[in-house]
Amino acid sequence: MALMPVTDSMFLLAEAREHPMHVGGLQLFELPDGAGPDYVSEFHRDLLSLADVRPLFRRRPRGPVGSVGQFAWTNDDQLDLEYHVRLSGLPRPGRVRELLELTSRLHGSLLDRHRPLWEFTVVDGLEGNRFATYSKIHHALLDGVSALKLIQSSLSEDPNELGVRPPWSPPVRTNVFDKPRRRAAEVDPFTAAGRLVKDVFGLGGAAVKVVNEAFREQSATLAFQAPKSMFNVPITGARRFAAQGWPLERVKAVGRAASATMNDVMLAMCSGALRQYMLDLGTLPDRPLVAAIPMSLRARSGASSSEGSLGGNAIGLILCNLATDKPDAATRLATIHDSMLKGKQVYHGMSRLQITALSAIPLIPLAVGTVPGMTTLTPPGFNVLISNVPGPREPLYWNGARMQGVYPLSIPYEGQALNITVTSYAGSLEFGLTGCRRTVPHLQRLLGLLEESLQDLEKATTA
Amino acid sequence: MALMPVTDSMFLLAEAREHPMHVGGLQLFELPDGAGPDYVSEFHRDLLSLADVRPLFRRRPRGPVGSVGQFAWTNDDQLDLEYHVRLSGLPRPGRVRELLELTSRLHGSLLDRHRPLWEFTVVDGLEGNRFATYSKIHHALLDGVSALKLIQSSLSEDPNELGVRPPWSPPVRTNVFDKPRRRAAEVDPFTAAGRLVKDVFGLGGAAVKVVNEAFREQSATLAFQAPKSMFNVPITGARRFAAQGWPLERVKAVGRAASATMNDVMLAMCSGALRQYMLDLGTLPDRPLVAAIPMSLRARSGASSSEGSLGGNAIGLILCNLATDKPDAATRLATIHDSMLKGKQVYHGMSRLQITALSAIPLIPLAVGTVPGMTTLTPPGFNVLISNVPGPREPLYWNGARMQGVYPLSIPYEGQALNITVTSYAGSLEFGLTGCRRTVPHLQRLLGLLEESLQDLEKATTA
Repeated sequence: MALMPVTDSMFLLAEAREHPMHVGGLQLFELPDGAGPDYVSEFHRDLLSLADVRPLFRRRPRGPVGSVGQFAWTNDDQLDLEYHVRLSGLPRPGRVRELLELTSRLHGSLLDRHRPLWEFTVVDGLEGNRFATYSKIHHALLDGVSALKLIQSSLSEDPNELGVRPPWSPPVRTNVFDKPRRRAAEVDPFTAAGRLVKDVFGLGGAAVKVVNEAFREQSATLAFQAPKSMFNVPITGARRFAAQGWPLERVKAVGRAASATMNDVMLAMCSGALRQYMLDLGTLPDRPLVAAIPMSLRARSGASSSEGSLGGNAIGLILCNLATDKPDAATRLATIHDSMLKGKQVYHGMSRLQITALSAIPLIPLAVGTVPGMTTLTPPGFNVLISNVPGPREPLYWNGARMQGVYPLSIPYEGQALNITVTSYAGSLEFGLTGCRRTVPHLQRLLGLLEESLQDLEKATTA
Repeated sequence: MALMPVTDSMFLLAEAREHPMHVGGLQLFELPDGAGPDYVSEFHRDLLSLADVRPLFRRRPRGPVGSVGQFAWTNDDQLDLEYHVRLSGLPRPGRVRELLELTSRLHGSLLDRHRPLWEFTVVDGLEGNRFATYSKIHHALLDGVSALKLIQSSLSEDPNELGVRPPWSPPVRTNVFDKPRRRAAEVDPFTAAGRLVKDVFGLGGAAVKVVNEAFREQSATLAFQAPKSMFNVPITGARRFAAQGWPLERVKAVGRAASATMNDVMLAMCSGALRQYMLDLGTLPDRPLVAAIPMSLRARSGASSSEGSLGGNAIGLILCNLATDKPDAATRLATIHDSMLKGKQVYHGMSRLQITALSAIPLIPLAVGTVPGMTTLTPPGFNVLISNVPGPREPLYWNGARMQGVYPLSIPYEGQALNITVTSYAGSLEFGLTGCRRTVPHLQRLLGLLEESLQDLEKATTA
């Protein structure tokens, strides 16, 4: 029995009925040619026949133990694969609408702590000769970015390869999974929160001084502050999930026309959609929404060699003015582009420690007081977390079934009722919106509004 | 905001991930003649169109409040009917097996305390021109017996009646629902536990003396004690549910041949099945299993008029020797018949207070220490709780759809990993077995063993 790292157990301690701490992924597959009516149930049965399960997927938590309530990992020696790998159906007519309803419900329930903290559901009954899979894994086991990469890396680029094994079965195709934390920390906001807080405070009083200085510097730089909004309230445990893909080419074309990055355009799509959504509900704040966007930043080399112990690239958290107060799409995009540039400039020339310290501040609420004394700092706050995780460019296959789309599900949090995570796949920009069902009503309307928002951007930039 | 009675809030305080405190019901319906492929989704849509919801189904808990951690009921003024009334599908081939898998999963997840504590799922995709409904309600809102009766009472005996409204919609057809506690307490074991403990201890020190005397009396009467068994261990939150109906006529025929009651034969079916199940697993105890069976008993009239404040009929808990140590089916049935007679005789001539006091003892573990000082009594204990709830004799219809079967789901508890609840309906004896998925492996095997057990009884009594 090995004690968990604090960064793992944090997710178990912080979990409550109101905010389960698992991430998820929804994948759509096309049935291969010649697939019969029993294809999906046979696919499920084949998964159950692979009884060999990687150690990571056999771990379950024990605890809390000791005076600080830390958890330990232990092996589940009675692993019940049928419990974890499930077969579900959709009610007729089996549209994506029914699939999203099911996925929302599956994502809203807590994982069983008496077992390894993951579930995988194969979904039958999807119209258009397709089936779906929904995977769910606790953040204490694997962060969102690694989970997404693991799913993708276990697939094949070869439509004729039939030996593709599921993510929990050894061996997987790449080694991403053997070092989940290393790559995870690059962009996953929750892991980043834990690591940053730990890194900074592991350094003692001097580091707190650095944080306070960096905080003053940022306050001077940023001309805006996150307003109160409908998304920044206590939440309930039920979820709504909405997902859709847009052709990358459309996004790129707007970027080219406006000299903006693809990421800027993605944020502008979100901005336009959120603005209209809140206008319809009569809840648009006067001041613009502020988004937090985790980004991988290259720290200045040699800025301070004594800080090498922090390891890896620096993770910066950019606070971006979403310009939701502006009615014009082009103005919003320009403001976002400008805000992202300034946000990166804040970090320009900083040492890795300074980047880490500065980025830690707005994430502190996510680290929910596992570090004593943190609550005395006032975080600048943000309204919505938007993550962008690059994905594979080529189409992927699972034993001949082409993956048509992949959509990430993340973690709404106390005071953060909406999470937007975006990934790219085979020429498509795939949006996954996870929200508290009560706090973010009719979340699926945001999909239509994202399309309208992209159309507005197209009109505004090519006119 | 009204404070909850202790008997309600007990179920919220006692709830944990490992033992959700809700009861459920699974109903199978035949599609009416001429039903099209969209019949089930239209049925679901019609349910959502009935926006009027009875006050009981709009209540949600608030709390705990105050120094004793009591809960209060409050009204949900933003009731989200779509959240509560769901449409699900089965994977192909849509057999009862797939239905039980789904039901097991639905029954294993906690209800959301931010909302009224009920869910209703319409299930599409069941083979044989059928559909199903699964209802789930928290025991703090409604006990298992009342929930079952409510579902049944909201249906019609007339296949041509099309104005049948769902259970949460006013008006229901009978008034059972306006006085749920009154009828519930007759047999529901969990409500009985709460009431009995409260009644007895509400009477102060004198009552404790009565309990202790009654306990000594029972110990002298019973020649057996519950052995340790595989069912009496800590449990996990995941569930397995198995259900099947048997023709009442077969059960009655055995009863007539052996001069036993229908209830005796039902218990003998359980006994034979449990014996074989544990033999197969190598876990059969040497001593016979003891079942606890809640029964409505008529207290001697005028035994003590001063005890009228306890109200209603007395609820007796019969501890029955299941004779699982005996290889012969006829011997088991005879032993059970004898044990039930003796069990009732223990109560014979007792006052209502004495019956109440005596019945409270083995239920104390279910009341989980909400009454301070209770833990100093040593309960005699039992191995499995078996409830028998009489149901309607005539076939019932929901807007022309004939109900084919109805199966109760109850609450496995810490130290009580298996619950058997039986009801009768239109010439059938309907068994619902709810177990902890980990502690009671391959629960569905018990269905085949119940059939074998009934066959053994038929052979043994008609030979």
